Amino acid sequence: MNEYDVIIIGTGPAGLSAALTSTIRNKKILLFGDIHSSKKVYKAHIINNYLGLPSVSGEELAKAFLEHIKKFDIEIRNERVARIYQVGEKFAVQVGQEMIPTKTIILATGVVMSKPFPGEDELLGKGVSYCATCDAALYKNKNAIVVSYSPEFEHEVDFLAEYADHVTYMPVYKYDSIEFNRDNISIVNEKPVSILSLEDASKEDGIDPALLEVKEDPNASPFAPKLDPVFLKTNESIHKTDGVFILRSAISPGKLIDGLKTVGPHVEVSRRMETNIPGVFACGDIAGEPYQYIKGAGEGDSAAISAAEYIDNLAHSHSE
Amino acid sequence: MNEYDVIIIGTGPAGLSAALTSTIRNKKILLFGDIHSSKKVYKAHIINNYLGLPSVSGEELAKAFLEHIKKFDIEIRNERVARIYQVGEKFAVQVGQEMIPTKTIILATGVVMSKPFPGEDELLGKGVSYCATCDAALYKNKNAIVVSYSPEFEHEVDFLAEYADHVTYMPVYKYDSIEFNRDNISIVNEKPVSILSLEDASKEDGIDPALLEVKEDPNASPFAPKLDPVFLKTNESIHKTDGVFILRSAISPGKLIDGLKTVGPHVEVSRRMETNIPGVFACGDIAGEPYQYIKGAGEGDSAAISAAEYIDNLAHSHSE
Repeated sequence: MNEYDVIIIGTGPAGLSAALTSTIRNKKILLFGDIHSSKKVYKAHIINNYLGLPSVSGEELAKAFLEHIKKFDIEIRNERVARIYQVGEKFAVQVGQEMIPTKTIILATGVVMSKPFPGEDELLGKGVSYCATCDAALYKNKNAIVVSYSPEFEHEVDFLAEYADHVTYMPVYKYDSIEFNRDNISIVNEKPVSILSLEDASKEDGIDPALLEVKEDPNASPFAPKLDPVFLKTNESIHKTDGVFILRSAISPGKLIDGLKTVGPHVEVSRRMETNIPGVFACGDIAGEPYQYIKGAGEGDSAAISAAEYIDNLAHSHSE
Repeated sequence: MNEYDVIIIGTGPAGLSAALTSTIRNKKILLFGDIHSSKKVYKAHIINNYLGLPSVSGEELAKAFLEHIKKFDIEIRNERVARIYQVGEKFAVQVGQEMIPTKTIILATGVVMSKPFPGEDELLGKGVSYCATCDAALYKNKNAIVVSYSPEFEHEVDFLAEYADHVTYMPVYKYDSIEFNRDNISIVNEKPVSILSLEDASKEDGIDPALLEVKEDPNASPFAPKLDPVFLKTNESIHKTDGVFILRSAISPGKLIDGLKTVGPHVEVSRRMETNIPGVFACGDIAGEPYQYIKGAGEGDSAAISAAEYIDNLAHSHSE
């Protein structure tokens, strides 16, 4: 299988700059993100301090960025990276059903501003998931709730509903109309408040005792882990389900890869953009304030150079 | 006297970017350096990875930079900063005979590639100096040797010779002709090797004992510090003198300001471009590798934002 040198996640100034320098350094790269550059770039009104491009609109800046990477034949894959796994001293990046091997990772995903729901962190992997495409097959004969932050996830929900008995879709964004191809998807307009375990739910005032009953699944494989239901509390009611999917455009970095050291919403990095995991680098807003375009571009370049040096050392130590 | 918010030293990408962001943040700034941007920029053949400006020549990049800062009415003062002094929690920057007060300093002077001569660090302030203009008055009735790395220093030597009995000029650069206005300057084409104290010199094999004699200066003020002669050893001989001036385009940062923490040729900085001295920030090549244009520009922006926050906190703590 094709192994990459560098997989870069994010197409803001940091990710694009990292892709550019990696390519110039003859590294084999994949770049994931929004094909228009980041929203923070192309939606900006005016940017005054990107040295060399005075007083450009976000749209103009994004255009200049994209023309630059096009000159170096860099393509953007507009897919969402669900998880990153360490495999020995290398990595596997999960994109939908695909696992892509790579020597290094550059995280340039921007900073996640939204806070997790109460219960979300605790129940991650125990009923809470961030990738409907990845986990769909586990939901045969089961129900799921999808809390979605963007219309871009509507197709993921269609895919999940191919497997699941029923999917409840809870959009947290403004929309005119949502249409799904399957009739086992219902749209519910409530505001999610928190996620509860069975134990948490049993302590809720006035909860319907019927909701707390756990039925054995007669079709379950004896090897399958027995999963308790989880509960999504909204501004209106409490929903019992087999799984809650929370689909945000940016996943907080600590959830993308196990063991990554974070400080608040940021990944902790050295001056050379190294994280605590050898082979994983971070740059741009995710690596800390100030949130500035030119700072992101500079850090992307540094991260790419550090990744290239890391790969060269890897090759060197193996040939000894 | 006019106090500045930020004095920025250096006009490469880091210094210019710092000047731009400081100005946008309404700070009162002074910017010192080469009016053409840095040599490393405008002499570059081609630059591929300054995101947004694909495949520009150094000349074009410098032009884009200078047009950008001109739009924001930023001027470059083409003078050399000799020393920076801490004055309470603020600073005084010495430029020729002028002392300019400022709340913060941003060092963006690039990295000094040349190593000091053996003896240079030890004898700094004891016969070795980096600023002929600053110390000229101390050389009345004395002799000096100037080791010069650039023709830009020839006028400094003329000024020194107004005071000194005799100046020996030792150019370390290529030249077609050098002409001075005064006849007490002689040009000597030898290659400097090391700088010796009186004690060091006495241990040199075959040194002329007459050179080691120390004469009292009958005109010296009884309050003036008694200075031993120093010796400049070249590839051809040993010269005895009252002072050796070493004039390089970039002064190594640790010598510009007392107590600044350096690591090799770099200033140690935090991720926010803070040095160990509160109010002093550093960015670009001087702050460490990789030596990259876009990285410098990004760091200049970060340094400016950190300086602005520092100034705001200063004002805040004084009003409490």
